[in-house]
Amino acid sequence: MHLRDLAWPDVRDLSRDMVVLIPTGSLEQHGPHLPLFTDSILATAVAEAVEARLSEEVLLTPTLWLGASTHHLAFPGTLSNSFEAYMGAIDAVIESLIPHGFHRFYVLNGHGGNTDANSMVLRNLKAKYPELTLGHSGYFAFVPPDAYAVLEGPIKGIRHACEAEASMILHLRPELVRTDRLRDDGMEPDPPIRGLVLHFDEETEEGSYGYATLATAGKGKVLFEAAVEGVASELAALAEGFILRSLPERS
Amino acid sequence: MHLRDLAWPDVRDLSRDMVVLIPTGSLEQHGPHLPLFTDSILATAVAEAVEARLSEEVLLTPTLWLGASTHHLAFPGTLSNSFEAYMGAIDAVIESLIPHGFHRFYVLNGHGGNTDANSMVLRNLKAKYPELTLGHSGYFAFVPPDAYAVLEGPIKGIRHACEAEASMILHLRPELVRTDRLRDDGMEPDPPIRGLVLHFDEETEEGSYGYATLATAGKGKVLFEAAVEGVASELAALAEGFILRSLPERS
Amino acid sequence: MHLRDLAWPDVRDLSRDMVVLIPTGSLEQHGPHLPLFTDSILATAVAEAVEARLSEEVLLTPTLWLGASTHHLAFPGTLSNSFEAYMGAIDAVIESLIPHGFHRFYVLNGHGGNTDANSMVLRNLKAKYPELTLGHSGYFAFVPPDAYAVLEGPIKGIRHACEAEASMILHLRPELVRTDRLRDDGMEPDPPIRGLVLHFDEETEEGSYGYATLATAGKGKVLFEAAVEGVASELAALAEGFILRSLPERS
Amino acid sequence: MHLRDLAWPDVRDLSRDMVVLIPTGSLEQHGPHLPLFTDSILATAVAEAVEARLSEEVLLTPTLWLGASTHHLAFPGTLSNSFEAYMGAIDAVIESLIPHGFHRFYVLNGHGGNTDANSMVLRNLKAKYPELTLGHSGYFAFVPPDAYAVLEGPIKGIRHACEAEASMILHLRPELVRTDRLRDDGMEPDPPIRGLVLHFDEETEEGSYGYATLATAGKGKVLFEAAVEGVASELAALAEGFILRSLPERS
Amino acid sequence: MHLRDLAWPDVRDLSRDMVVLIPTGSLEQHGPHLPLFTDSILATAVAEAVEARLSEEVLLTPTLWLGASTHHLAFPGTLSNSFEAYMGAIDAVIESLIPHGFHRFYVLNGHGGNTDANSMVLRNLKAKYPELTLGHSGYFAFVPPDAYAVLEGPIKGIRHACEAEASMILHLRPELVRTDRLRDDGMEPDPPIRGLVLHFDEETEEGSYGYATLATAGKGKVLFEAAVEGVASELAALAEGFILRSLPERS
Amino acid sequence: MHLRDLAWPDVRDLSRDMVVLIPTGSLEQHGPHLPLFTDSILATAVAEAVEARLSEEVLLTPTLWLGASTHHLAFPGTLSNSFEAYMGAIDAVIESLIPHGFHRFYVLNGHGGNTDANSMVLRNLKAKYPELTLGHSGYFAFVPPDAYAVLEGPIKGIRHACEAEASMILHLRPELVRTDRLRDDGMEPDPPIRGLVLHFDEETEEGSYGYATLATAGKGKVLFEAAVEGVASELAALAEGFILRSLPERS
Repeated sequence: MHLRDLAWPDVRDLSRDMVVLIPTGSLEQHGPHLPLFTDSILATAVAEAVEARLSEEVLLTPTLWLGASTHHLAFPGTLSNSFEAYMGAIDAVIESLIPHGFHRFYVLNGHGGNTDANSMVLRNLKAKYPELTLGHSGYFAFVPPDAYAVLEGPIKGIRHACEAEASMILHLRPELVRTDRLRDDGMEPDPPIRGLVLHFDEETEEGSYGYATLATAGKGKVLFEAAVEGVASELAALAEGFILRSLPERS
Repeated sequence: MHLRDLAWPDVRDLSRDMVVLIPTGSLEQHGPHLPLFTDSILATAVAEAVEARLSEEVLLTPTLWLGASTHHLAFPGTLSNSFEAYMGAIDAVIESLIPHGFHRFYVLNGHGGNTDANSMVLRNLKAKYPELTLGHSGYFAFVPPDAYAVLEGPIKGIRHACEAEASMILHLRPELVRTDRLRDDGMEPDPPIRGLVLHFDEETEEGSYGYATLATAGKGKVLFEAAVEGVASELAALAEGFILRSLPERS
Repeated sequence: MHLRDLAWPDVRDLSRDMVVLIPTGSLEQHGPHLPLFTDSILATAVAEAVEARLSEEVLLTPTLWLGASTHHLAFPGTLSNSFEAYMGAIDAVIESLIPHGFHRFYVLNGHGGNTDANSMVLRNLKAKYPELTLGHSGYFAFVPPDAYAVLEGPIKGIRHACEAEASMILHLRPELVRTDRLRDDGMEPDPPIRGLVLHFDEETEEGSYGYATLATAGKGKVLFEAAVEGVASELAALAEGFILRSLPERS
Repeated sequence: MHLRDLAWPDVRDLSRDMVVLIPTGSLEQHGPHLPLFTDSILATAVAEAVEARLSEEVLLTPTLWLGASTHHLAFPGTLSNSFEAYMGAIDAVIESLIPHGFHRFYVLNGHGGNTDANSMVLRNLKAKYPELTLGHSGYFAFVPPDAYAVLEGPIKGIRHACEAEASMILHLRPELVRTDRLRDDGMEPDPPIRGLVLHFDEETEEGSYGYATLATAGKGKVLFEAAVEGVASELAALAEGFILRSLPERS
Repeated sequence: MHLRDLAWPDVRDLSRDMVVLIPTGSLEQHGPHLPLFTDSILATAVAEAVEARLSEEVLLTPTLWLGASTHHLAFPGTLSNSFEAYMGAIDAVIESLIPHGFHRFYVLNGHGGNTDANSMVLRNLKAKYPELTLGHSGYFAFVPPDAYAVLEGPIKGIRHACEAEASMILHLRPELVRTDRLRDDGMEPDPPIRGLVLHFDEETEEGSYGYATLATAGKGKVLFEAAVEGVASELAALAEGFILRSLPERS
Repeated sequence: MHLRDLAWPDVRDLSRDMVVLIPTGSLEQHGPHLPLFTDSILATAVAEAVEARLSEEVLLTPTLWLGASTHHLAFPGTLSNSFEAYMGAIDAVIESLIPHGFHRFYVLNGHGGNTDANSMVLRNLKAKYPELTLGHSGYFAFVPPDAYAVLEGPIKGIRHACEAEASMILHLRPELVRTDRLRDDGMEPDPPIRGLVLHFDEETEEGSYGYATLATAGKGKVLFEAAVEGVASELAALAEGFILRSLPERS
């Protein structure tokens, strides 16, 4: 169900076991070739495709598109929410529905920069309401490793405005890709030191990371559908409920 | 321009005198007959129609759809942001663009419950950056009084899920109106006492206020187009800049 | 009753149906002719006159005089509270009395710049305690339109350090008016654009807005007494309680 | 000078070396015999008497009367501000005046429960503006020890609604003292343990602490005048400026 | 008991009447002669010595070493927590243990700059949980006046990096004292004005206050043991509980 | 260098290119067999061993031991800081040193529950001070995969109170391990759903996760030394500085 389209008596009559699905994105620079809304387009598209498959199990909210993007602010057009306001919005969505009996919430993220905040706000909610079922993940984490084999460049995963993201936008919204500006970009610390906090104007020349010149709509279709498949199957399971089982005995 | 569709070099090349237009809405109950997204649909539609007329003068952001709606929370499906997070989001949009030279911002609101917060966040920004041009208003304030004459009921204005709002949704998104559930609703304090803070489960029976049974798509078209015309003409003026002139001498 | 003058056993013995009346003002520039405390003087005087009429129905707190006045800070002497601290004070007054059973609270405001914050803090309290009766308004909203006819200038209402305010201070505290400095002042955007957030050093030359040179104590007496009459009659009604009645049937 | 009575050009013309004097009080229970406003009455009276002596050196603000009084909330009528809002108000007063060149600020406190907060807010301001001269103290700390000899009871100082406070209110506002309800009150932990945080409904039977039955207006006059003398002499010195001198050499 | 060394079943089995002892310190400049950790070393040493005597009555947490030290920030190496984060940590320790039944908490402070914040956070907790027993004090307040007679300089108490502190560090951690850099230091306002908020780069030449050149390990031993004795005897009493008794009748 | 042991002139004379190393831990339940301080013991031990190797390159602060541990609060003894206060402390450490010229900061974490917050606070600092070099990681991320081969159980990594952690505590502080209580524990959702936020009283029976019965001091030594080696080599590199190099050309 699309929450936005319902009237309140429709919501009153829904099963409280539905998974409330909350997509999160960003509006931030994605290189010279992709639109600022890339992450929001992708998270929304995955979420809507999942809802289309699971309309009785999933209650989909509109996308919280204003993400945490300070690392992209040097590039004009990027809008970065504060962590407080970003987390406050997710908290507000969930707190609004708890008194009406909903108890399963899943944040489906399209922007890596939101991950810390998604975790933190859900942990705070879990501390306050231990009986809730709460989860979050990037849609990209649901893509099985073998699907990434479609990528030709050396990075087998989704980075930023890269071969994978450019391919998926070519698949979903080709009119928004500036194909004449596709380029490979990205820089790494030498010597390698883990855990550095870097900005994209340090890490790239023009704001993308990876091998966008290799992007094709066909690859995008593969990745997108793999993500939808992955999310749908886990959310379907979540809507059924789960139980906790002990670790396997060590042999 | 639609900010979401641009890539960062496109933003880099825009005129800094454009008016950044930020629509704000809600996702809250609108009676048994209208969708939860009513306010967001209307603010977005007005803003997009204005952008279509003034694409060189207006830089349109996506709609901040999660409004301040505590007065509707008793009805399931309503999502209410905290004032802090709601204001934080507007602040973040504007603060992200200031370092890149944009200096004219206008918040176009579709939900009366956001008005206090829109004012407060812009006043704080004005205090911090006195040189900015900042403004906000409900789109409904741009409808000239004579346009409201199209309404047949005794309320000549836009309230909540009323003749006017139902008409505009019938005009814009008729498939979302439960015409079989249209009803008149609303209650007023007796004796009248100004300034009471009431919730919609006190003020109404089923969440709407006014004479929705009188709604027609035709009325909605009149009101919607009047709003677009009003917003467009003032924003066009704002994009030209304005000067301050002394009060007229009293005769 | 004046809360400040009571001892705690006196409060213990009061009716919990009394309306707790909380005046709010400012200490901000009011042109070269009026004292910084103008808004606080007026709100306090109205509130005290109302208490004098309704001492059994109204429990009057001292005036929260430190208002939200960033738009006046360019003029020396203005003190502006933050919105957070301003709202925190109102919240604290009400939260302190709730556990002792008081349930009717009315904020009587003397400064337009406080309006957003008065609304927001009461809405937050209403969300937390839906059973409370909460209201707020400027004292000036209680003046009936025909009383404003006493004003000779083209502005038929109360603006800032204007014909109306200067008249009321001449009525109440004539020794504080610098009659040798009375002046007309004020500027408006051309072309007119609604909802702009402007500062008083933009909107005026010396900090007042309107036709102060027309002020007389006699006009002030009329306006002041009309305000007192309006507030007293509505608060008397509020102390009786009110009921909610359906909208009139449309004919 | 009384800031509240000035118009902004008057403030513009003041010396920036004046000490801005900010009285702080409370509205909290003071036993069955004293008014809720006791602390505010006393701090205000001392401050006004000091201003009367030093009108060229002292710029007096109205009293911030809403103090931090959670330890009295069990007694009806007490209003307790949050620490945040209380500190926010003091911060706001000072931050409003800094841009206009004032640089000496003194908080004169009438309520022991405000002391922590007065210290904290001034320390934060000092960290932000190290060049400011900032100070705070209870008015009672300025009473020299020998003046307390006027008290007949075993407590030679000012506690709460005690011999000293009751005497000063008898001196200043005798009509507000319920002389028929004067009583001795107060409890102490046994065994004595320093630093316990106790509430007044634990520490007293009816909210006062000490020997109020010994109060007389004559004692109150002595104490009040000693406080005024003490404050006035130190603020006069502060308005002259001070220098820092090394510790004496140890012999 | 040292909380840090226990496993959770050990805590489960403890008496809930134990006093949870929370030492607080700082990491801030202590002149050229003492280590930055001076306050934390001292508070920890006193607390550990008390725990050694009262292991069944006291549950000791690790030291919250990051204190409120803005007044020392001009000297490199000083780390100053914000008041919010400092208070938040104490609050968190106590809030974590309340649900498990602990109800007696004592903050033992080694740094004067923490006093306001210790008081404020405990007052907030007491307001929320009036049934708790809460207390706080500097360890130095437990030293009886006659023990200070061991000091040869004119200051009979503990200031900052002074004769007393240097002596105690010489007693406890002599290897950390730069005896070649011991010096007397400190400045006072002339004329004396009470309650000024001064920074240590104003009040001293090199960051200490008092007569450190007089320090000896022997004096340190006397003072340290007196502090331990004082704290231990009061905490032992607290672990027994206390009752509140009325003030003595005045004769 | 150990910051805590220095006096301020020692800090004044340090190279500003040193890496300020900030260990973070927790005090939270670690099953029936390990001490509450496990994470803090481990992070501190690694950090101190690294400092011992790199005393000229690393400036080590004391451990911020009060971590974010709401997921363990059901087990008595756990202390959980709020995210705000936890992040505030890290922010305060870094903000205190920036004005003195330090510009390289690394947070070495011993508790997985701190990761979100470590990232968030450093991202906020990077947004404010883009020129800083900031990084954070768990010490466990520095252990090379082959070192984990020493573990016999099926989990090749560090979880919670598991084979790895128990082994390291057996190596470092064997007297704190309740070897009679070692047990295997842990539960997983079935069906597997990624990203669920679970509490340890849901995920385990007695608070540990993994195969602690396999722990040996010998394994602990291997893992601990591998961690120290890993951290030391990367921090040594960081103290030299790093440059950013473009991604390799794709072949």
